[in-house]
Amino acid sequence: MNLQELIARQRPGWSLEQPFYTSAEIYDLERKTWLARQWYVLGHSSEVRESGSFIVRDLLGESLIIVRGNDGTVRGFFNVCRHRGSRICDADGKAASLMCPYHAWTYRLDGTLRSAPALPEGIDTSQLGLRPAPVKEIGGVILGSLQGELESLEPVRQALEPALIYHGVPNARIAARRHYPTRGNWKLVMENFMECYHCFPAHPEYCSVMRHVDALGRVSSDGAARWQQTLEEWLRNQANPDSPIGNQQFNFTAPVQSYGATRAPIGGGCKTQTKDGEPAAPLMGEQSRFDGGVSTLRIDPFVYIAALNDYVRLFQFLPTGPETTDVVLTWLVDGEAREPDVDIEKLVWLWDVTTVQDKALIERNAAGIRSTAYSPGPYSTLESMPAQFVGRYLRELAL
Amino acid sequence: MNLQELIARQRPGWSLEQPFYTSAEIYDLERKTWLARQWYVLGHSSEVRESGSFIVRDLLGESLIIVRGNDGTVRGFFNVCRHRGSRICDADGKAASLMCPYHAWTYRLDGTLRSAPALPEGIDTSQLGLRPAPVKEIGGVILGSLQGELESLEPVRQALEPALIYHGVPNARIAARRHYPTRGNWKLVMENFMECYHCFPAHPEYCSVMRHVDALGRVSSDGAARWQQTLEEWLRNQANPDSPIGNQQFNFTAPVQSYGATRAPIGGGCKTQTKDGEPAAPLMGEQSRFDGGVSTLRIDPFVYIAALNDYVRLFQFLPTGPETTDVVLTWLVDGEAREPDVDIEKLVWLWDVTTVQDKALIERNAAGIRSTAYSPGPYSTLESMPAQFVGRYLRELAL
Amino acid sequence: MNLQELIARQRPGWSLEQPFYTSAEIYDLERKTWLARQWYVLGHSSEVRESGSFIVRDLLGESLIIVRGNDGTVRGFFNVCRHRGSRICDADGKAASLMCPYHAWTYRLDGTLRSAPALPEGIDTSQLGLRPAPVKEIGGVILGSLQGELESLEPVRQALEPALIYHGVPNARIAARRHYPTRGNWKLVMENFMECYHCFPAHPEYCSVMRHVDALGRVSSDGAARWQQTLEEWLRNQANPDSPIGNQQFNFTAPVQSYGATRAPIGGGCKTQTKDGEPAAPLMGEQSRFDGGVSTLRIDPFVYIAALNDYVRLFQFLPTGPETTDVVLTWLVDGEAREPDVDIEKLVWLWDVTTVQDKALIERNAAGIRSTAYSPGPYSTLESMPAQFVGRYLRELAL
Repeated sequence: MNLQELIARQRPGWSLEQPFYTSAEIYDLERKTWLARQWYVLGHSSEVRESGSFIVRDLLGESLIIVRGNDGTVRGFFNVCRHRGSRICDADGKAASLMCPYHAWTYRLDGTLRSAPALPEGIDTSQLGLRPAPVKEIGGVILGSLQGELESLEPVRQALEPALIYHGVPNARIAARRHYPTRGNWKLVMENFMECYHCFPAHPEYCSVMRHVDALGRVSSDGAARWQQTLEEWLRNQANPDSPIGNQQFNFTAPVQSYGATRAPIGGGCKTQTKDGEPAAPLMGEQSRFDGGVSTLRIDPFVYIAALNDYVRLFQFLPTGPETTDVVLTWLVDGEAREPDVDIEKLVWLWDVTTVQDKALIERNAAGIRSTAYSPGPYSTLESMPAQFVGRYLRELAL
Repeated sequence: MNLQELIARQRPGWSLEQPFYTSAEIYDLERKTWLARQWYVLGHSSEVRESGSFIVRDLLGESLIIVRGNDGTVRGFFNVCRHRGSRICDADGKAASLMCPYHAWTYRLDGTLRSAPALPEGIDTSQLGLRPAPVKEIGGVILGSLQGELESLEPVRQALEPALIYHGVPNARIAARRHYPTRGNWKLVMENFMECYHCFPAHPEYCSVMRHVDALGRVSSDGAARWQQTLEEWLRNQANPDSPIGNQQFNFTAPVQSYGATRAPIGGGCKTQTKDGEPAAPLMGEQSRFDGGVSTLRIDPFVYIAALNDYVRLFQFLPTGPETTDVVLTWLVDGEAREPDVDIEKLVWLWDVTTVQDKALIERNAAGIRSTAYSPGPYSTLESMPAQFVGRYLRELAL
Repeated sequence: MNLQELIARQRPGWSLEQPFYTSAEIYDLERKTWLARQWYVLGHSSEVRESGSFIVRDLLGESLIIVRGNDGTVRGFFNVCRHRGSRICDADGKAASLMCPYHAWTYRLDGTLRSAPALPEGIDTSQLGLRPAPVKEIGGVILGSLQGELESLEPVRQALEPALIYHGVPNARIAARRHYPTRGNWKLVMENFMECYHCFPAHPEYCSVMRHVDALGRVSSDGAARWQQTLEEWLRNQANPDSPIGNQQFNFTAPVQSYGATRAPIGGGCKTQTKDGEPAAPLMGEQSRFDGGVSTLRIDPFVYIAALNDYVRLFQFLPTGPETTDVVLTWLVDGEAREPDVDIEKLVWLWDVTTVQDKALIERNAAGIRSTAYSPGPYSTLESMPAQFVGRYLRELAL
């Protein structure tokens, strides 16, 4: 297969040809290049609250150790001993140093090798520290990558951190986390996540909460102009005025990294995204009152955070193979919220049921695409986001 | 591997070399060419009796929708939406149209696209109908293929349909269906099915019913001449005289498609193929009485139908991978037969026990062939049919 | 991948690069060459005690039949019928001849074809015997290979058989056998087995029995000279004087096959390798009394036998795939030992717990090596044996 030819012949506005969704060869290439450069949510600060606290997480087939050092900085390391390659940590924990259970080689929390008994003469142990992986803590969210450049995150941090702090993310605690392993290529997962064309046929619960979604999955049945008016009225009359996102929706499509943040009302008098629109947990962060808004913060395409007044949802989209993707949802609530004031089933209901539905849709999509009868079809006018995403992906993969 | 060389060096009268039974590369080639051109039993007419009734069946890794249209015609379609490739139907059902559960694209029962909301300007929806697959209903049996030519079936239909009608197949109902997924290449399954050299060591139940099978698995221990006499006597004295197969055994080996039909007595006074030789269900079709015969109708190599006086067996041999084959047996009885008049365990006994035994034989055969010590061995004089089949396969694969 | 280049760039004294531990291509090559030439423990003589007794064992993906003939000789055959390739034996058994269950082809215990009905004219049945595999019984141990030369075992037999007879192995019986299927390349298993650098961190039970193992996994904390003295004192004062290994430790590194035998005291007053140092079974073979020694007999690298005063452990290391290895331990006791005189849990305790630990260590090692962050690391001074083994392997693989 000639990849450049394959890329060149993809038709703009139409879905991709089969190999992009099924080929192990393309996935291997993506994993070494395009996917390796992206950023992913790896966890929440509360998971490594203290010095020596560490978590073990998989990213693109690699096991990473994420550990908070004695200097308070969160770092990432490949979970591979420099002696004979053993995994060092099996599970989350807390320790003064990281000791490999095979031959007791021991590393400091900054990754340098502290001790390795009986080494031959002439071995330079300063070259035998744990290999670092790019990891950064931003406003309570732990982001990671395999080849991303930490400096590229600095403007992202400046843009998003104030909103994360405003929503109380740094001091939040995890109320629930659920995994939705999905048998489908990661691009099918992202295409699904990026469009609401399927909402009306497939997500009755979502449509019942987000009441301005119409039968075509559009945000408003009255078109863009009317939605703009609704949004502006909400920002003027109801929205908490002190949000750092404010009434400025921003989207940066940098050459290196596009990201953004937006605010919008849920509508229909709902205070939050629950079945009855009533809160499932106490007000979070610096918000003064329930304004019925949802803030979304993104680092395209994999980092997506939705902040309601009472809870925050972290989305994780983790490619695990040519045709498998782990989707993980984490629900955060205020760090001080007492157990009885948090209704976990109420909290998780909407996106749990929606993600279960999406998993089935994506797996059915993946099954169909494996057929020799599959050929690309046209994106509808309501699928401009996946169409744009696919275009960006093709341009960048060809680099 | 040079396939032409490999084919050329196969020794006539000896079993094939290992790659033909194990290679994923050869199976992929077969699936796109030789296997794709063959015909397979996909089901029985009773499964899609009414307009809008549909079944979902796998064929060579493809999911097909088989649906009866408003005009009464049974059609086949690849189960792939023309939008973004989703599977459309998960399971059998009945509907006025076929709607994809992802974005609600809707197709008529003839496969044309009826509605797809929010399509961009300039999309020609007449080009977005479901992709058809060759499917034809003949005498109550639904045949399908991936690349077969429907016209090639016309002489087959003319030859076999009268016998299928005579045996009551179009109006029959399914009494039982059982699956025997077998870990072996489809050629091992067919070679097993085509010879009775193994009957005496491996199928005591079969030999007890088919009493003229001798210790060498021959139909008669007295040789061909004696068997010819037995057959002629039965045709003259006992056989129902009005069978369309009559006393004409026919076999057509066309360049495109070989097929045939034969009649023979079970022997030993048995009325049908049951443990005690007594009927398990009422007389079927236009047969006037129990004559103890078994009619076999074939479209080589995968379509095989055995019609007794009281029941009909459909055999399905469905390659599913380089080393896996689904064998499915369906037992039909008269459509009007009342529940208490059908003894299902009695009906299925012979070929259920025989197929379970064959599955074990084939899987042991497949296991041995994976060894580096395997080399082709000589077919015995009682294995002329697999030897001929293998020869035909090699000639046609080389085309 | 250019294997010669890959071999050439491996750094002596450092662990191997990733492909040697993960690549299916390299494993396939090993299986046809280097691994195929080695010898493996396949079983114990008691498993085929009588003429016609046979066992069915897997070796490097091949199923072998090991059978004792009417002449008392143990032979090995590939478990593949010469007719159409079926497996002949499913499980251990005893028979006057070996009959294929498919078409009843029958072989004598020496592998020659006895009967095959209905063969065509001109088939030379003398060419259709079972394919032999190199198998040899030495001092009660059944050794096998795929391509090893039986003659190469003759000096090994002369060297090791007296000690095996002295320890009562030929007339022993199997008290216990346990399987430890390990998800790791066979070289990771062997490297683990060959060094005790990991003993102190990972094997507390082993260290509690082998009391001269120190915190660095060295046999003695007092260094080589002190250990030599300990050993000599034991040989002079305590060891049974009539052992054929005697006070001569021998190691032969022949061009074809290296092997060896050694004796050593367990230490700490232990009579045998049990939790309390007390016997778990009666004294074996020709030993006159409990001397607290352990004899080890090896044919490098896969054949390893440990003989205590009261029991013998056979180790089997069986590569089963690029990243899987079966480890099997068999505990032998005196053939005449009565059931109540053998404490099986006491017998198996040490090496069962140790092998369970090693399985976890090896699987963690294998998981780490799959990472792109893995690179070879330096062997410590206590890992000279794996370092030497890896060197020998690279030299021989390149041949």
